[in-house]
Amino acid sequence: MPVEQWDLYEAALDGPAHGNPFREVHLTARFRHEAGAGQSAAAVETTGCYDGEGRYLLRFMPHLPGTWRWETRSNDPGLDARRGSFTCEPASGDNHGPVRVRDTHHFAYADGTPYWQLGTTCYAWTHQGDALAAQTLATLAGAPFNKLRMCVFPKHYAYNRNDPERYPFAGSRQAGFDLDRFDPAFFRDLERRVAALRDLGIEADLILFHPYDRGHWGFDAMGAEADEHYLRYVVARLAPYRNVWWSLANEYDLLAAKSRADWERLGRLLRDLDPYGHLRSIHNCHAFYDHNRPWITHASVQSGRAVAGWGGAAVLREAYGKPVVFDEVRYEGDIDQPWGRITARELVHRFWQGTVAGTYVGHGETYRHPEDLLWWSKGGVLRGESPPRLAFLREVLEALPAGLEQIGHDDRTPDTAYAPGGHYLVYLGDRAPDSWPFRLPVNPGRHEVAEGARFRVEVLDTWHMRITEIPGPFTATLRTGRLAVDRAGRAVPLPAEPWQALRITPLPG
Amino acid sequence: MPVEQWDLYEAALDGPAHGNPFREVHLTARFRHEAGAGQSAAAVETTGCYDGEGRYLLRFMPHLPGTWRWETRSNDPGLDARRGSFTCEPASGDNHGPVRVRDTHHFAYADGTPYWQLGTTCYAWTHQGDALAAQTLATLAGAPFNKLRMCVFPKHYAYNRNDPERYPFAGSRQAGFDLDRFDPAFFRDLERRVAALRDLGIEADLILFHPYDRGHWGFDAMGAEADEHYLRYVVARLAPYRNVWWSLANEYDLLAAKSRADWERLGRLLRDLDPYGHLRSIHNCHAFYDHNRPWITHASVQSGRAVAGWGGAAVLREAYGKPVVFDEVRYEGDIDQPWGRITARELVHRFWQGTVAGTYVGHGETYRHPEDLLWWSKGGVLRGESPPRLAFLREVLEALPAGLEQIGHDDRTPDTAYAPGGHYLVYLGDRAPDSWPFRLPVNPGRHEVAEGARFRVEVLDTWHMRITEIPGPFTATLRTGRLAVDRAGRAVPLPAEPWQALRITPLPG
Repeated sequence: MPVEQWDLYEAALDGPAHGNPFREVHLTARFRHEAGAGQSAAAVETTGCYDGEGRYLLRFMPHLPGTWRWETRSNDPGLDARRGSFTCEPASGDNHGPVRVRDTHHFAYADGTPYWQLGTTCYAWTHQGDALAAQTLATLAGAPFNKLRMCVFPKHYAYNRNDPERYPFAGSRQAGFDLDRFDPAFFRDLERRVAALRDLGIEADLILFHPYDRGHWGFDAMGAEADEHYLRYVVARLAPYRNVWWSLANEYDLLAAKSRADWERLGRLLRDLDPYGHLRSIHNCHAFYDHNRPWITHASVQSGRAVAGWGGAAVLREAYGKPVVFDEVRYEGDIDQPWGRITARELVHRFWQGTVAGTYVGHGETYRHPEDLLWWSKGGVLRGESPPRLAFLREVLEALPAGLEQIGHDDRTPDTAYAPGGHYLVYLGDRAPDSWPFRLPVNPGRHEVAEGARFRVEVLDTWHMRITEIPGPFTATLRTGRLAVDRAGRAVPLPAEPWQALRITPLPG
Repeated sequence: MPVEQWDLYEAALDGPAHGNPFREVHLTARFRHEAGAGQSAAAVETTGCYDGEGRYLLRFMPHLPGTWRWETRSNDPGLDARRGSFTCEPASGDNHGPVRVRDTHHFAYADGTPYWQLGTTCYAWTHQGDALAAQTLATLAGAPFNKLRMCVFPKHYAYNRNDPERYPFAGSRQAGFDLDRFDPAFFRDLERRVAALRDLGIEADLILFHPYDRGHWGFDAMGAEADEHYLRYVVARLAPYRNVWWSLANEYDLLAAKSRADWERLGRLLRDLDPYGHLRSIHNCHAFYDHNRPWITHASVQSGRAVAGWGGAAVLREAYGKPVVFDEVRYEGDIDQPWGRITARELVHRFWQGTVAGTYVGHGETYRHPEDLLWWSKGGVLRGESPPRLAFLREVLEALPAGLEQIGHDDRTPDTAYAPGGHYLVYLGDRAPDSWPFRLPVNPGRHEVAEGARFRVEVLDTWHMRITEIPGPFTATLRTGRLAVDRAGRAVPLPAEPWQALRITPLPG
């Protein structure tokens, strides 16, 4: 049975069930691609994993169509030197492969399709049972989000005091957990959900450690050896899912039991374990992590300030020279916590601010609920006003060439972003001018504007989700070497309301 | 003859003049402090340097009063095992010792006196001959600046095409330079000027490498071995001056001959060579250096945007967890370059923006001149309007307790800074409100405001340099757990002009 490119190939092998196979049986496989004409040979080393009851899984995400042959190595004679093969067919439909960094500050799928990160957060949605998980997936199917931040470990925190049905490890909270033995059923549940997100076109930003335990289960302080054993098992099972991202920790600086040296060790181990090079980052509470570290592929930052005002997001992008995702900018909601009670208007504003800075933003929702069903933690249904506005933003972004970057002559309120090919996106935020003087920044050698170039101008009401085209093309003339204006001196009329943006599109000359 | 604490002790020894002493003679000395009652023993290893004509210098900056004894080690028998001693007296007058990092994001002198960085830039002032250098020093004596960025190597760039009188190395541009032999006369000139700055209370931010050579002399591409030989000699000669800071490079990313690995190697070497631990950084053009690197003590950043708008500077401070100095934010001037033609108002605005973000800013002046005497490069006289306003800012800062940090309820325009003890500095920038509702942000556990606390409020006109006290104390009452307002609901009247600030000072209860 053929497997599609970047889909999951899985072979199950029978092996020993005695002793502790999680610790005692080592299984790896080498997957070799049969190079066709004009193809170079490719081979990938993977690690198998024990799935319980004498069952061992070999999983693999093929990145090339054609025939793949595999052979195992194991310290168990019965599992050693086993062979197999399968056919991989080209990707089809919405399968574009895993997301990679592209052009320093942006993302694209492996097949080159641009990926505009528009994330949301349901930290503990996989720990709430099937009924609520099914509702969460149904909600996501109709929502604009293409990435979801979610924890592997259960969460013990305000609005989320309930224990999960299953745990990553054998044992129980009462009897204690056996950190040497995993519960494969827990991981099968997790994988079903990761696969369901994949089928919805949603990246699963898997949070591997978090501080929301505080002695309740002890998973935040297992010790270095158990941390690494856990990491090896999670990566072996989940790395073959193309939509996986690795978030080493959420609010790493609240995990008292781990030092910066621990995070560096675990981050490098994560990079070395994953044969597919999925995206890797680590998320802060108070103190930004050093996202210049080589094992980090993109900055995952908590900061409201950086995207609430002008300028912060673009400056941080310069500091890291990597894609910057503001995964937590405070949440739309009404709980009695400053981080969980901003308005939908403010959250949508922060998305647009991050966007014109050439960065990416994440959503979360924290409206009080009689049964503590807060989207940000448990999933369920969305009740806020921001999602349709974020769907509008996503449509605007997906109509642009990839690679927005902030440019502009006005350092004070840097509101203009450039996309390759002479597209511009201007966001005016809470200012409510009644007109916008048509002016395009020119950066010699980088962002040129040809004399006489013609542009279509549309006014985007980011809150009411209205697009108004301004009649007649605007024709650029260079006023100075660094500024182009409309030849007829025209300005763009605006409704004198806040939250307006401008989409400026080049017309064929 | 006694030496004052943190002043320069120097002993000259006679030794061999034949061969190449710069390369062939190794001389070190161990300075040992005679511990008195309640003092722990201290010892410092220093490197001597050849000063020409058979003359060898032992230099030392003593950090403790009392008796210091030294003994040399050398591969030259005549210089080996030489001994001496001197008496160090406590620092007096304006001698506060070298500047160190304090409280993560700030600076203080070694004796604990706060240091509020207010820098300026005269890259090539030591290469313009004595007359102009004397004029530069006279100008600095009447200017508000307490730090000067200056290059060791001469500069070949727009407005600075003239060759210097002397070079760090023996030889000439025509005949070529002997990178194995230094010109001690060049360094004596440099040291005279560093000492003159010290006596004016000005830190010398010595730029060790820069790109403004481009084949004219070749000092930007000497090769790793010559770079390190140069670094050893400069540090041996200049580290004993208490007012030295090390700027490994200016616009490091324009030095095509050096890679990131070169900068890391040189940065670590610099740290290891300097027995006094002077401040170390490296300055960018386009790409911020990774200021999280351990050998870097503070971030030296070129960015106009970070301090022109709200929020950028504070976000960058979070990213680095070190003091941030915006050494280049564009210069007051009128040359035909975007980086050299902002107004004095804009430059002063950028200083205030950086200040309320808890960061530090640098000045530069680039007004056209018939003989190309631009302050930013050659020094001379200041002709701009910003220096008196920066003197006003310095007075305001030096009246505050050390340790400004941005706080506040308004992420969108973070305009309020807090200083220990309940002092506040609010900067309103280009907004021109006719009143300011008295409101102090409260961060439980960090920035508390006591019910009934009383404050004096002054309006500071940062451009016209006027201080207006608002009658009667304001009395705080907590409106919410995160906001204190005036008990009588009073607002602070403002002149409805831009560039206003508020100084809020706690009164005895």
